[in-house]
Amino acid sequence: MATGRTHRPATRSRGIPEATVARLPLYLRALTALSERSVPTVSSEELAAAAGVNSAKLRKDFSYLGSYGTRGVGYDVEYLVYQISRELGLTQDWPVVIVGIGNLGAALANYGGFASRGFRVAALIDADPAMAGRPVAGLPVRHTDELESIIRDNGVSIGVIATPAGAAQQVCDRLVAAGVTSILNFAPTVLAVPEGVDVRKVDLSIELQILAFHEQRKAGEETTAPSGAGAAAAAAVAARPAAGGRKGPEGDVPAVMPA
Amino acid sequence: MATGRTHRPATRSRGIPEATVARLPLYLRALTALSERSVPTVSSEELAAAAGVNSAKLRKDFSYLGSYGTRGVGYDVEYLVYQISRELGLTQDWPVVIVGIGNLGAALANYGGFASRGFRVAALIDADPAMAGRPVAGLPVRHTDELESIIRDNGVSIGVIATPAGAAQQVCDRLVAAGVTSILNFAPTVLAVPEGVDVRKVDLSIELQILAFHEQRKAGEETTAPSGAGAAAAAAVAARPAAGGRKGPEGDVPAVMPA
Repeated sequence: MATGRTHRPATRSRGIPEATVARLPLYLRALTALSERSVPTVSSEELAAAAGVNSAKLRKDFSYLGSYGTRGVGYDVEYLVYQISRELGLTQDWPVVIVGIGNLGAALANYGGFASRGFRVAALIDADPAMAGRPVAGLPVRHTDELESIIRDNGVSIGVIATPAGAAQQVCDRLVAAGVTSILNFAPTVLAVPEGVDVRKVDLSIELQILAFHEQRKAGEETTAPSGAGAAAAAAVAARPAAGGRKGPEGDVPAVMPA
Repeated sequence: MATGRTHRPATRSRGIPEATVARLPLYLRALTALSERSVPTVSSEELAAAAGVNSAKLRKDFSYLGSYGTRGVGYDVEYLVYQISRELGLTQDWPVVIVGIGNLGAALANYGGFASRGFRVAALIDADPAMAGRPVAGLPVRHTDELESIIRDNGVSIGVIATPAGAAQQVCDRLVAAGVTSILNFAPTVLAVPEGVDVRKVDLSIELQILAFHEQRKAGEETTAPSGAGAAAAAAVAARPAAGGRKGPEGDVPAVMPA
């Protein structure tokens, strides 16, 4: 199956749909939780439920990794952790810099989940001269003046921006000019970057939004007549024109007009 | 299509697949960015690219909302923001408490993205008596002793845990006993909760992992012979047994054996 591709691994990786790439960390998170509980194997259904993904989609995603599981046994948790980590590039060391060491930057510097996934905090950078030299998470904060030399000396390709919104674009421009090609943006602003630079914006409210959906649903279940907070939203839903009460799998939906 | 469902909105909401629910905040984030740039309409392809989702899947997801766009014009950005917000329950007010006011808790308290999505921080709670009364993000920190009364008095159903790992389960138990039914867990530990309580665990490294995938790919593209950091990972990919270099759409994959 890998005919003619073994010498072009980058091309091969590019063959994985972006949506699959975006789900790999979700699988990895669920698998890591299983691994921490010393669970040896997992069925596609269990893993799909834990990752919040349809199990048919999970199997399709894993087929891109060449991982098919064993019928009646499931997937080997540890091996799948390794496979996904390798695919995501987490088996190598990624030095990152964090720029903006306020509460969020300091929290990120202390965040254990980076190191355990191959992300090593190479330096903490802040524009405030009063911060310079102060230890945060065991690293001395460096001043923004040093940004370019830090990037160069540490071979940093990933920058994390945790500055206020107003400073983020300027920091981004300097990171990119210094050679950074991936930006993780926690600042509440949209960043402009040249082609070839990837930016991902973190929205800390995303998981809260999913919880809100379920809270709304719970409120709706407790309500028989439209009254109360949940029912107000529920009534708005009921008033919606063209929406069915489908409960089947995703494939159950009629064809829609492309927009 | 909504026949017999208009009086059971909760049932209707339950008909949306969990994977679609999980994508709604991603669409909302992309749409909000468009809205901030005053973009009036968006095609499914553009929006799918911005949200990192396959466009056919996006159209299917939106069909659950009864949103089909207009051929040749696309989707109305503002209306779609409203539709998704309503579906997620973000058009109502959700009082939340944040427990654990260290760097992360303080960063979350200051995070503008909560309020703009309908999440109102009702109280900040910390176990440290020295923190009590100290203002963070304009709110006085309250002591853990008051946790139950705060939950009750504010009708809080969503709790955010930003404590160290060791304290998280105890805090979680108290929140649940006091009536909280959704937990957003930033603590690096797995929480046990009774049935009917939703827990979502935030992994701040997820977006970094997606960036790492692209960095690895970029490194592979720059390398013709296997040498250097990216190629090391690339060589591991090449050595993988049963994986093809598929570049087609997701449907292009052979059937896989269910695990």
